[in-house]
Amino acid sequence: MKLGVLGTGMAGHAIGTKLVQMGQDVMMGSRSSTNEKAAAWVKANGPKASQGTFADAAKFGEILFNCTHGMASLDALKLAGAENMKGKILIDLANPLDFSKGMPPTLAVSNTDSLAEQIQRAFPDTKVVKSLNTMNCKLMVNPSLVRGDHDVFVSGNDKAAKSRVTEILRNWFGWKSVVDLGDIGSARGAEQLLPLWLRLVGALGTANFNLKIVK
Amino acid sequence: MKLGVLGTGMAGHAIGTKLVQMGQDVMMGSRSSTNEKAAAWVKANGPKASQGTFADAAKFGEILFNCTHGMASLDALKLAGAENMKGKILIDLANPLDFSKGMPPTLAVSNTDSLAEQIQRAFPDTKVVKSLNTMNCKLMVNPSLVRGDHDVFVSGNDKAAKSRVTEILRNWFGWKSVVDLGDIGSARGAEQLLPLWLRLVGALGTANFNLKIVK
Repeated sequence: MKLGVLGTGMAGHAIGTKLVQMGQDVMMGSRSSTNEKAAAWVKANGPKASQGTFADAAKFGEILFNCTHGMASLDALKLAGAENMKGKILIDLANPLDFSKGMPPTLAVSNTDSLAEQIQRAFPDTKVVKSLNTMNCKLMVNPSLVRGDHDVFVSGNDKAAKSRVTEILRNWFGWKSVVDLGDIGSARGAEQLLPLWLRLVGALGTANFNLKIVK
Repeated sequence: MKLGVLGTGMAGHAIGTKLVQMGQDVMMGSRSSTNEKAAAWVKANGPKASQGTFADAAKFGEILFNCTHGMASLDALKLAGAENMKGKILIDLANPLDFSKGMPPTLAVSNTDSLAEQIQRAFPDTKVVKSLNTMNCKLMVNPSLVRGDHDVFVSGNDKAAKSRVTEILRNWFGWKSVVDLGDIGSARGAEQLLPLWLRLVGALGTANFNLKIVK
């Protein structure tokens, strides 16, 4: 199927490359249709990979991935255009990490709201599903890099959309355990995991880890 | 040894009872020296259990446990008294969950600060160690209620204090894996785990779970 990946950073590259490997047609979107990082990605990934503006990628994709930086997501999605995203699933991977006040970063939105909720309010005709924001880019599309079972979360208001995203996570990305946290408001929990995640990177000396719920 | 447990709620009962079972002398502190919940706990736990005011318990204990509600912790600790807590380890279990605006609760302090940091700033001569705030009360003192390995975190500025708390967690409470997140600022991560924890209670239908870091 046709998929749109918004953003040319590490997450966009990881997601886009995996989707092409799974035989899908992927357009990577950015502010400019000639973005150099997207061009390099297209060159590396063959005929099923293409590039365009945010609007081009949003129009192209039947399902969209928000892989932009969290601080720039709302602006990027405005450029993508509500009309181009209408009725579609938007998988939101972004974290609103604000590095402008030094390290460790703080969250630009948290506690009483979340980036995922802001996006859902701004684009009410799009089915926003928060997921994959709680681990590093390599692990997102290759969970077997960490031994044993561990979990990825989904949050969203549309049950069918969450089911579709769960299928993608399982069948394309290889996730064995997908935990449905609830409505899009539950993305507050997933986004507020980042301060702990960043401290764990320091404590463990690696970003190659994930969390498993045990009961 | 002599230990002070500040607070008469579920956490205070769980911690206090476990400490008595481990052969320690425990005073439970509250606003009133005749608090009925503390009196019931003393009656149930025999001669090694006693009760008093927050100040009595803070003076009595060589190590202190903050088991008060997070929204009331700073007030309770002021009553406990800086002089009574001077030089001592305070294990802070509290979460600043604000239920006043409905469900789910929000955090009264988060992101750019934490309750543990507020306590450390208010009582600079006390060694604050955040721990045990990321699981339910029964699990705090009986990790084997959840199968397999799983983790408890410690955050604090004083390394010797964290080592002492780690010993208590291992030897008295039965924790096998204690993860040092870093300085007291890392308590932001542990406290901001609560919104996810509360959603997981809903998603899993039980509070009898914990998180395990896998790598």
